[in-house]
Amino acid sequence: MALIKKPVTGMRDILPSEMEIRDYCISVIKKTYAEFGFLSIETPAVESIDNLTSKQGGDNEKLIFRIMKRGEKLRISEAQSEADLADSGLRYDLTVPLVRYYSAHSAELPAPFKALQMGNVWRAERPQRGRFRQFMQCDIDIIGEPTNLAEIELFLATTTTLGRLGFKGFQLKMNDRRMLKAMAEFSGFPRERFDEVFIILDKMDKIGIDGVASELTGAGFDEAAVAEYTGLFRELGEADDALGFLEKKLEGVIAPEVIPWIREIMDTVDATKTADFRLVFDPTIVRGMSYYTGTIFEIAMPELGVSCGGGGRYDKMVGRFTGQDVPACGFSIGFERIILILTEQGFKVPGASGKTAYLIEKGMPAERLAEILGEAQKEREGGRRILVARMNKNKKFQKESLSQSGYTEFKEFYVN
Amino acid sequence: MALIKKPVTGMRDILPSEMEIRDYCISVIKKTYAEFGFLSIETPAVESIDNLTSKQGGDNEKLIFRIMKRGEKLRISEAQSEADLADSGLRYDLTVPLVRYYSAHSAELPAPFKALQMGNVWRAERPQRGRFRQFMQCDIDIIGEPTNLAEIELFLATTTTLGRLGFKGFQLKMNDRRMLKAMAEFSGFPRERFDEVFIILDKMDKIGIDGVASELTGAGFDEAAVAEYTGLFRELGEADDALGFLEKKLEGVIAPEVIPWIREIMDTVDATKTADFRLVFDPTIVRGMSYYTGTIFEIAMPELGVSCGGGGRYDKMVGRFTGQDVPACGFSIGFERIILILTEQGFKVPGASGKTAYLIEKGMPAERLAEILGEAQKEREGGRRILVARMNKNKKFQKESLSQSGYTEFKEFYVN
Repeated sequence: MALIKKPVTGMRDILPSEMEIRDYCISVIKKTYAEFGFLSIETPAVESIDNLTSKQGGDNEKLIFRIMKRGEKLRISEAQSEADLADSGLRYDLTVPLVRYYSAHSAELPAPFKALQMGNVWRAERPQRGRFRQFMQCDIDIIGEPTNLAEIELFLATTTTLGRLGFKGFQLKMNDRRMLKAMAEFSGFPRERFDEVFIILDKMDKIGIDGVASELTGAGFDEAAVAEYTGLFRELGEADDALGFLEKKLEGVIAPEVIPWIREIMDTVDATKTADFRLVFDPTIVRGMSYYTGTIFEIAMPELGVSCGGGGRYDKMVGRFTGQDVPACGFSIGFERIILILTEQGFKVPGASGKTAYLIEKGMPAERLAEILGEAQKEREGGRRILVARMNKNKKFQKESLSQSGYTEFKEFYVN
Repeated sequence: MALIKKPVTGMRDILPSEMEIRDYCISVIKKTYAEFGFLSIETPAVESIDNLTSKQGGDNEKLIFRIMKRGEKLRISEAQSEADLADSGLRYDLTVPLVRYYSAHSAELPAPFKALQMGNVWRAERPQRGRFRQFMQCDIDIIGEPTNLAEIELFLATTTTLGRLGFKGFQLKMNDRRMLKAMAEFSGFPRERFDEVFIILDKMDKIGIDGVASELTGAGFDEAAVAEYTGLFRELGEADDALGFLEKKLEGVIAPEVIPWIREIMDTVDATKTADFRLVFDPTIVRGMSYYTGTIFEIAMPELGVSCGGGGRYDKMVGRFTGQDVPACGFSIGFERIILILTEQGFKVPGASGKTAYLIEKGMPAERLAEILGEAQKEREGGRRILVARMNKNKKFQKESLSQSGYTEFKEFYVN
């Protein structure tokens, strides 16, 4: 039987030209985050199905690749549902595994624990252009740091990394779940329906303030609340100092430490940043995951109209594993998005040029072959990339094919 | 409900101290193989179940983690067997995915195609000490090179890599499936039972020549054949020039090109190698996988009594996908074994020392905080690793914990 050449539905093979960019980006990311004191960790691709379906993952829990039980535990004839057949699944993000990891190993880890995790995650999404069922995530997290020094370090580390990858003029937008809630409360929305309000607010950049207003009304919210809420955003749009405006407006509704918390992050990062970006407070940032408890943020590349990562503070998730809350804050770079942008921009990996191919005619005597290989070894010890290959019959085609793989110099060796 | 802290059965979390060694080894491996002209590639962790169960994987096919079908395709009530429920599985090696990859993309790849693939594989083995169900493999393969230049390049690249990782005095043992067959044929074993003979021969290093003889007899082989076969190995053990001895002895049984093929590899590698190792011809090397067609080899670390990788030529596997054979040869480094050895030897990653922790007292005014962070940024730009953290109440414990993570210098910043 002939075998199947294509990757499984929705997943993809990565060709060498893209891999070169990926390997380069990974090395820049690992090096930069290491300078910031982040420690590399790895968790298994497979997690127990109970952890994956514990409501930490939101909609991603609908997209799990389930792994079948094995041996005696697999009882097909008695099975009623998926739950009877699967004991584990592929992770859909790196946050649930990180928190499990921290819970299991905290005694062996420094405090605060600054973690870097790069690895694939899997989601059984409907296949579509540019979206794949296996993709790499790149997360940094600080666990055990209750103050906003966590946010400051995450912002500096991530923007420094993006800067070193050549990104300029981007925005880092921040907000706070406590701010979101205070604005909703101020407007008079019922507390138990806040999440519905935020899901609609999240569409602001697509449908505008009028669109948000009409969707809120359509969802049955009180018209006075909707008017108050959208009025607040309109006034904010005109305010010179959005935080100062909110400080007065929300007095008594928002906890007094929230606005100084945001302001300190913004001032410190502005005074310290090395990359070319703007940190902006944006009260329309929502971030979907329900586990966020404080600061939330995302990277926007205005020229490209896309987001390239984000994250937030989740002070209550460790407690789900250990029974005791530990403060935590994480930033996930949109690794695949970054690779796509760099690839489309024709990014050239620094130092990747200057590859030499040695083409050796067939039938080369052993002694001469050893000499040629010795020459190649010497060039390699000097750091140059040397391909040694037999000369094909169609040498012209071979050289063209190698040129496309970045070989710029050819040395040909003939028997006579 | 409290979540589960432990990784799933048989898999493990990797702590920062080991990850530092892994990241270092990965960078040395990628850099060295790139110098030899190998191109990084990546294939999905998930492969179609048909490819995984196509008899290329030997016993590994019994150890597949199967992934359940999803949505309408999953019909639990009608399912009779695993095959009805699973459409894919986690790869158990990198060879099947590589050959599928090559078959799908050969038009876009240079000829010969020299591939480097590092990635996790999964096998549902019975959990035991030191053996895990998820582990990293590191394979280099050359596809499209019919001559022994493939073997020579694989040997030089892999031994150079091991040398750069600090390994010395190891052996690279080689044999050839054609030699194995010729010796069995010469001795008079029936051709259809050769594989049984080789499985017993493979135990030579554990049970010795007498053990092999008695197992062969016990398996019902003709005593004259067993005597001839073991006599051959005894004579070989005493021969000064094993290949010269076999050349005479097997004349007319072995194809005339086989021994010169082996000799040319040995002579060329000996004349060119830069690492400290011995390349030896060892007629007892078997390698389990049935897909090997020519040269086979493995790395032995005699002091440690372990094998650290191996591989061989498999000229018939691409044809299973495309209908047309393409020569191929691959070498897999025993990545996990290497990490284990380095970890046990207390390996220190070069340049990993010299980390500084900034400990900042709580309540530091924003302006002073920005100054301190600015100082950290400058040190980072210079390549130094700087952790910035709030000073804990128990500063002594915090510093001890950070010392264990490699922080050798502490700078303390107080509010007054």
